[in-house]
Amino acid sequence: MSETPRVLALCGGVGGAKLALGLYRLLGPALTLVVNTGDDFTHLGLRICPDLDTVTYTLADRVNPETGWGRADDSGRFMAAVTELGGEDWFFLGDRDLALHVERTRRLAAGESLSAVTAAVAAAFGIAARVLPMSDQPVATQVETDTGILAFQHYFVRERCRPSLRALHYQGAAQAAPHPELLAALADPALAAIVICPSNPWLSIDPLLALPGVRAALAAAPAPVVAVSPIVGGQALKGPTAKIMAELGLEVSARTIAAHYRDFLDCLLLDCSDGALAADLPGSRVAATVMGSEADKVALARAVLEAARDCRNRSG
Amino acid sequence: MSETPRVLALCGGVGGAKLALGLYRLLGPALTLVVNTGDDFTHLGLRICPDLDTVTYTLADRVNPETGWGRADDSGRFMAAVTELGGEDWFFLGDRDLALHVERTRRLAAGESLSAVTAAVAAAFGIAARVLPMSDQPVATQVETDTGILAFQHYFVRERCRPSLRALHYQGAAQAAPHPELLAALADPALAAIVICPSNPWLSIDPLLALPGVRAALAAAPAPVVAVSPIVGGQALKGPTAKIMAELGLEVSARTIAAHYRDFLDCLLLDCSDGALAADLPGSRVAATVMGSEADKVALARAVLEAARDCRNRSG
Repeated sequence: MSETPRVLALCGGVGGAKLALGLYRLLGPALTLVVNTGDDFTHLGLRICPDLDTVTYTLADRVNPETGWGRADDSGRFMAAVTELGGEDWFFLGDRDLALHVERTRRLAAGESLSAVTAAVAAAFGIAARVLPMSDQPVATQVETDTGILAFQHYFVRERCRPSLRALHYQGAAQAAPHPELLAALADPALAAIVICPSNPWLSIDPLLALPGVRAALAAAPAPVVAVSPIVGGQALKGPTAKIMAELGLEVSARTIAAHYRDFLDCLLLDCSDGALAADLPGSRVAATVMGSEADKVALARAVLEAARDCRNRSG
Repeated sequence: MSETPRVLALCGGVGGAKLALGLYRLLGPALTLVVNTGDDFTHLGLRICPDLDTVTYTLADRVNPETGWGRADDSGRFMAAVTELGGEDWFFLGDRDLALHVERTRRLAAGESLSAVTAAVAAAFGIAARVLPMSDQPVATQVETDTGILAFQHYFVRERCRPSLRALHYQGAAQAAPHPELLAALADPALAAIVICPSNPWLSIDPLLALPGVRAALAAAPAPVVAVSPIVGGQALKGPTAKIMAELGLEVSARTIAAHYRDFLDCLLLDCSDGALAADLPGSRVAATVMGSEADKVALARAVLEAARDCRNRSG
C-alpha cells in the first residue's frame, strides 16, 4: 500500500478546526496544519494563542463541544478568583485550559520557539498531525474601527465585534518569517492538496497571506489549492464574517470569497445552498459544508480531497 | 475610647498564621504582620509566595481549613492539565489559588513592588490589617543537606524534608532591605508589642532576622518582644521543626527556642505541657498554645498581648 500523500491545510479557529478534524481523521500523520497566530496576545502576563489552541484541543479530542473552543470538562474557579482580585476578566480562561497558557509562557520565556512549544503540546496530547504556527515571530491583527484601532481580542471578545470595522492590519507580518515547513510544503511537487479551511478570510487567513512570500508561493504551488467557502446561503454560519464583509463594502456571497482568493485558488467548495452560484464561478463545486457531526466533518474533508484529486487529474 | 495600640507580629506560614488570625480578631487594623518571604520561588514561570498567601488567605477567611494553606473550595483541574502536558506537578496550585500567582507575576513584571501587590490583594480581600513582605527584594532560603544544596521548596515540598539538614542559607538576605515599616515599627515607642508567632525559627523567622539591622532593631526595640514556642511537650506540633532541630544538634525543647531568641526576647510563651520548664526560663509563662479552634487562636492572642502588657508594666 502506498503512503498517504501529504496535505497542507491553512486554518483559523473554530470553523476551520472542524474541517481540520475531518482531514485528520482521513489523513492522520500525513496532514500538516498551518494555523493563524494573528489572534495571539499576551493577557494577564500569559501568552495566549486562541487558534492554535482550538486546533490542538480539537485534534486531541479535548475541545469543549458546546463552544468549539476551550477544553471539555473545564471550570471557572480561576476566573472567579481573578474577578475577586479586581483583575481583567473579559477573556475567559478555563482552569484546565490555563495549564497550556502557563506552560507555553514559561517555555517561550525560557527561549523555546512557538513551533517547539506547539509541537511538544501536540506530542503530549498524542496528535499525529503536524500543527504549526504560521510564524515563530509575533503577528498581531489590529482592527481599525469607527471608534479607533483595537487589538484583535479587544475587538473580538471584549467588544464582541460591535464597533464597525473599516480595515485590518497585521502588525509585524511584513517582518515575520513564514514557518519554513509552510514554504517547503507549498513548493513540494508531491503535495496532494493545499486546503483553505472555511475560516474567516479577513481575520484568520489574511494574516497568513500577509507573511512575506506566502501569497506568491500559493500562486506558484504545484499542488491544487482548494478552499471551502465560509459563506453558506449568502450568510456566515456563525461569527462576524457577514457583518465584516458588509462593513468592508463587500457582497456577502461565496462570490466574494472566490474573488478574495482568485490569484491562487483552483477550486472553491460552495455549500449546496449556494449551488446557483456554481455556474458563475469556474472551478467551483458544491458540497455539504455545514459540519454538525463528526461524520459531516469527515464527509467534507473527503469532498475537499476529491476536488483536489480532480484538479490534479485535469491539469496532469 | 482610646485607639487600639499597634502590634507588630512576625510570622511564617501555617502555624504562624493561626496566631496571626487570633491577633487580627482582637486588633483589626492595629495589627501589622511582617511575613517571611524566604520560601518564595518562581515556579512554572509564576512568582509564588507561600507564607504571604497563607497569611492573606487566613485573614481573608479564604484558607483551606483542611490544610491550613491554599484556598477553600478549590480544585485541581489546572494541575491535572499540567501533568497531562508533562509539566512540573510536584507543587500543588489550586485553580482558585492560581489567580493570585498569575496576577502577582503580571504586576511584578509590570514593575510593581511585592509590597504594593500584597497590599492590593489584601485590599481586594477586605483585610484591615497591614500585611507586609519582610522585604521587597528577593531572599531565597537554601537548605544544605546531606545530598547537596536544595532550594527551599525543593527541600520542603518536593523532597518532603527527607534529606538530613546541615545548615540553612538565606540567599540575598544581606543585600535585601527590610521593609521600611518593619524598621519603623521596631523603633516605635508607642508600639504595644512585638510578637514572634509560633513559626519554625530556622525556616520562617531566621530569614527575617537575617535582613540587615533587624536583629539589632529587635534587641533595641522599646516594645516588649513576646514569642510563642513552636515546641509543645518536647515535640513540634506539625511540620519538620523537631527533625530539623535534631539534625542541627539542638535539644528539641522550648529551652532551645528561648536560647535562639535570647538577644531580644522579653517573654516566651510555653505550652502548658512544658510548664515544668518555666522555672528554668526567666521571663517565660505558660499558655495553651495548641490552636484547634478559632477560640483557641483568639485566647492565645489574648495571652500574648497580656504578657506584653505585663512586660511593659514591669519595665515601665
